[in-house]
Amino acid sequence: MSYQVAVLAGDGIGPEVMVEARKVLTAVEQRFGLEINYSEYDVGGAAIDNQGCPLPDSTLKGCEAADAILFGSVGGPKWSHLPPDSQPERGALLPLRGHFELFCNLRPAKLHTGLEGLSPLRADISAQGFDVVCVRELTGGIYFGKPKGRQGEGEAEEAFDTMRYSRKEIRRIAKIAFETAQGRRKKVTSIDKANVLACSVLWREVVEEVAKDYPDVALEHMYIDNATMQLLRRPFDFDVVLCSNLFGDILSDEIAMLTGSMGLLSSASINGSGFGLFEPAGGSAPDIAGKGIANPVAQILSAALMLRFSLQQEEAASAIERAVGKALAAGYLTGELLAADQRHKAKSTKEMGDFIAQAI
Amino acid sequence: MSYQVAVLAGDGIGPEVMVEARKVLTAVEQRFGLEINYSEYDVGGAAIDNQGCPLPDSTLKGCEAADAILFGSVGGPKWSHLPPDSQPERGALLPLRGHFELFCNLRPAKLHTGLEGLSPLRADISAQGFDVVCVRELTGGIYFGKPKGRQGEGEAEEAFDTMRYSRKEIRRIAKIAFETAQGRRKKVTSIDKANVLACSVLWREVVEEVAKDYPDVALEHMYIDNATMQLLRRPFDFDVVLCSNLFGDILSDEIAMLTGSMGLLSSASINGSGFGLFEPAGGSAPDIAGKGIANPVAQILSAALMLRFSLQQEEAASAIERAVGKALAAGYLTGELLAADQRHKAKSTKEMGDFIAQAI
Ligand SMILES: CC(C)[C@H](C(=O)O)[C@@H](O)C(=O)O
Ligand SMILES: CC(C)[C@H](C(=O)O)[C@@H](O)C(=O)O
Repeated sequence: MSYQVAVLAGDGIGPEVMVEARKVLTAVEQRFGLEINYSEYDVGGAAIDNQGCPLPDSTLKGCEAADAILFGSVGGPKWSHLPPDSQPERGALLPLRGHFELFCNLRPAKLHTGLEGLSPLRADISAQGFDVVCVRELTGGIYFGKPKGRQGEGEAEEAFDTMRYSRKEIRRIAKIAFETAQGRRKKVTSIDKANVLACSVLWREVVEEVAKDYPDVALEHMYIDNATMQLLRRPFDFDVVLCSNLFGDILSDEIAMLTGSMGLLSSASINGSGFGLFEPAGGSAPDIAGKGIANPVAQILSAALMLRFSLQQEEAASAIERAVGKALAAGYLTGELLAADQRHKAKSTKEMGDFIAQAI
Repeated sequence: MSYQVAVLAGDGIGPEVMVEARKVLTAVEQRFGLEINYSEYDVGGAAIDNQGCPLPDSTLKGCEAADAILFGSVGGPKWSHLPPDSQPERGALLPLRGHFELFCNLRPAKLHTGLEGLSPLRADISAQGFDVVCVRELTGGIYFGKPKGRQGEGEAEEAFDTMRYSRKEIRRIAKIAFETAQGRRKKVTSIDKANVLACSVLWREVVEEVAKDYPDVALEHMYIDNATMQLLRRPFDFDVVLCSNLFGDILSDEIAMLTGSMGLLSSASINGSGFGLFEPAGGSAPDIAGKGIANPVAQILSAALMLRFSLQQEEAASAIERAVGKALAAGYLTGELLAADQRHKAKSTKEMGDFIAQAI
């Protein structure tokens, strides 16, 4: 089997964790007899510096020619003075999502055994662990809805954004949530604000309709404000959390932080044909870039998600996840996951990558 | 001094905690020589049952004739089958906010000394305590923006909501955040999603302008997704959190839950003339209604906020807050604030009210 992957390493720690992900991919290619061809393209701040815009045409063309995009991270203080549309995050991620219609964002988050102490939650809550997948709609809602802009003058000048969802958009993401739940603990919590938003009322209606086709999956509806609260008290009661674009942005980050280990979390953004963009859930972390201490696990796990969802190589994907599990279970960890008095045991970015590649 | 207060006790535990708030108000009236006249009106589910709608005209007229509204809580399973617009919460609260232009919602939340263990946060985080006021815009944004509705047919049918903010609306709420910060730790964290929303870009601009008039107050901007995370790691770094309507709905509930003691939190919704609606932050808690075990403190503290903001009786307001502090410091607590093995010491709703009234 031969595949084409567009590698967009980006800014900050992106390039250095990408090296480790490539190392691990090479190991699975050998073990499973795959052939993956990689082409590297500029994106984000690096693309602004080299080519004048965060998502150059050549990058977009390269992605079009590939089976999947392996994405690092973009952004940093160097480009934060730019107008919003030209900034690395907004100027690269949003157009990529829109262009490839990556409507489905999957963000798995779990509290790893032995790492419960990293969670900002009270010991008796984190002791119960949790394992949640956030299924976020990624190409609709208030992110892309038109009209969006400004009008008027002086103090009456106003800005406006439109939240907009069609039955079709809601149905396709809801289906993925229910299918995901079928492979897990069979529960979907659908997040909305149906006591205020017309979009949420439609959201609830369509989710109810879809639920009828999955009688083995339990469905509950929860208001977004209540969800931010319940996740703090009883995260273990959640299995699949189904969200619109904006609510998913907020809740998936809350859930990620509840694990206390952002460096372990990755995210898949896929479209209807299985093409996808795979990236770590954390940011470009410019403060630690270039020091060789960044955790490459999230990037490595995003390669696993790519193998699973875009390259249909489930065995190779699981092999990576098992190898990562082995590293964590062995206490093989980067510094940010260790207690202050254990930091001398911290592994470097490279040591983590080597161990995991070895374990494949 | 003589005042007129509209009392809207509502549903669930509303009426029973209101009894205690009235008891405490009677104590401050005597001590400070105030004369407060109360008129009671139906609201929420009670109004639906008695008069067929959640906010009858007579209630609205009564509120118009008053200096302030003392609100209990509304809603419950009995009315949750109704269409969204007719439900107690949406059908009463939103129109009251709109009608009286209660654009400013203040929600103070702090971790009380001795009650840190109630917080769902890890012990070393909660040990540092926190004391935050959420200043939420309450009559604009996506809650009230037009157009809002549905159009189209079949799978193409779509729903839409409009987020809309004018400079004037942003400026007036931002001013209140900065003034509030001046009386506290002099820091404003303004929440937005300026990397996606046109409203947030304008929000940031106007908040920056307002900040120039308050050079003694530090301003930081934070994306909503990042804010939900940072509040979990370092809530003690926040002082005043300034939010639009939707983001404030979400964050103020997250912050409330971080205290682990919703029964102690109250909320003030005020307009430009000092008229306001004062209510507990928690809900109507139908599961414990009528048992005499509900915590009346949030309702009592909302009476204090009413004295402060609408009746301009700062001394009386502080007296209530001190009396509440005394009860908490003495371990005088309702059951939900006590560890399981201490529940036998739980005070009833009435005992709490008696103690606090006594302490005035
Ligand atoms: C960078 C930003 C536009 C983006 C979003 O809001 O979707 C980010 O927060 C994310 O969640 O991927
Ligand atoms: C009941 C609901 C409409 C309301 C809101 O969203 O504002 C509530 O959640 C609140 O925060 O007061």
